[in-house]
Amino acid sequence: MVVDSKSWYKFKRQLWSRLWEDLEIGYLDKDLLPVLVLFNLDRDVYTLSSCSGRIVVSDSKYPWSREESNIVLKKHVPLDYSDLDALLKKPVVRRLWLNATGPVIHLSTRDLRTAAYVLKVARLAGYKHSGVLSVNKHKGIIVELTTGVRFSTFLAETGNSLEGDDVRRLVEKANEILLYGKLMLNRLYEVARRHLPRVVDEEVERQVKARGGLLDKSPEEIFIDMMRRLNQFNYIEAYKRIASGLS
Amino acid sequence: MVVDSKSWYKFKRQLWSRLWEDLEIGYLDKDLLPVLVLFNLDRDVYTLSSCSGRIVVSDSKYPWSREESNIVLKKHVPLDYSDLDALLKKPVVRRLWLNATGPVIHLSTRDLRTAAYVLKVARLAGYKHSGVLSVNKHKGIIVELTTGVRFSTFLAETGNSLEGDDVRRLVEKANEILLYGKLMLNRLYEVARRHLPRVVDEEVERQVKARGGLLDKSPEEIFIDMMRRLNQFNYIEAYKRIASGLS
Repeated sequence: MVVDSKSWYKFKRQLWSRLWEDLEIGYLDKDLLPVLVLFNLDRDVYTLSSCSGRIVVSDSKYPWSREESNIVLKKHVPLDYSDLDALLKKPVVRRLWLNATGPVIHLSTRDLRTAAYVLKVARLAGYKHSGVLSVNKHKGIIVELTTGVRFSTFLAETGNSLEGDDVRRLVEKANEILLYGKLMLNRLYEVARRHLPRVVDEEVERQVKARGGLLDKSPEEIFIDMMRRLNQFNYIEAYKRIASGLS
Repeated sequence: MVVDSKSWYKFKRQLWSRLWEDLEIGYLDKDLLPVLVLFNLDRDVYTLSSCSGRIVVSDSKYPWSREESNIVLKKHVPLDYSDLDALLKKPVVRRLWLNATGPVIHLSTRDLRTAAYVLKVARLAGYKHSGVLSVNKHKGIIVELTTGVRFSTFLAETGNSLEGDDVRRLVEKANEILLYGKLMLNRLYEVARRHLPRVVDEEVERQVKARGGLLDKSPEEIFIDMMRRLNQFNYIEAYKRIASGLS
């Protein structure tokens, strides 16, 4: 199937303005921005809904349930045990699950050749679970870039809950895994900017320049700034510890 | 990129004989067989290493680590707490993780059109996380069919282990999630056989007939037989309970 370039570019322009709206209303994780800008700077790529990595606590039958599921907590930075404390005292409807996931980038390319190239770059960065999800004449080749960084555990249900100390242990591990995901986000950025853009999208470049660069800071620098503003210096230390074990 | 049909068929024949070797030496989960046979019966599809769903306990830094990782337990049927009991008494080198994952089917198609068709069938069966992993001139379009059914939790590290009762609770949930995965395997089979094969691979069909059909039993029937032989009647009940909640 051949992608229709005209409608594909229309989608790219539309999604690109949406990205700035999302950023303004706080929908967008700030540390994700450099990655999204980088991909959109390529003439043949645009990004779709993506995530820098997150921790979610849901009250649902299964961790992956969408229907009859209630997300009781969602954060893109580490969880404080006190965030959970109140939740654990309330009655649980179904079951409480604690999930941490690494980054997920959704993007569209204008042709298969570009999709294959982006997948190769993603694999270089360790995004082993990436692939083409679907092909659409107007929206393009839809690609998902993702890692195996993932943690998903049970916490509580009525009459059958984990001990407080064990919940604490699991929160600690979920946070460590979130931080590992943030490292992977930074790695994608560092690897991708050696390979992208292949052909610059001049309209995107013009707008990026008008907004004062935006590519001056890496996801890592932005994340560390965020942690600093939240006075979470211990997580900056933890991040650096994980980073030293990763390379 | 166009796939070279001649070498693609050579791979198909090669992988097809490997499948029977794997079955004979016990490498292949028996309940996976009907799904693999079904896909291979299509002239334009062959299957690669796949999994019917499993529980793995690893001693590793992270649940997804491959290097410096030791798989201490791997099962394609539910875990008995006693399987873990001895493990939990031994010293842990890194950290013990308990992982349950749903089915993962890897296959190759001879062209993109067939890959898109297979992905559509898989989505109908609820395999939302499926996609094209790569494209190879000789090996074909490599596709992964997978679900969001997944559980991955921390159990123990030196001086920082979960309580025995909590490990029991987590094993129970891991087993339930494994059973949910088995249901998803059966669902893929039931949906796929309404849509496949599109064009029969006569060589494969001849061999399947020579081996006495092989498509008489569904993955569900085979799994229930397995549980019956292991005297695990409680898991047959649990499977049926999950099934009644799923539809």
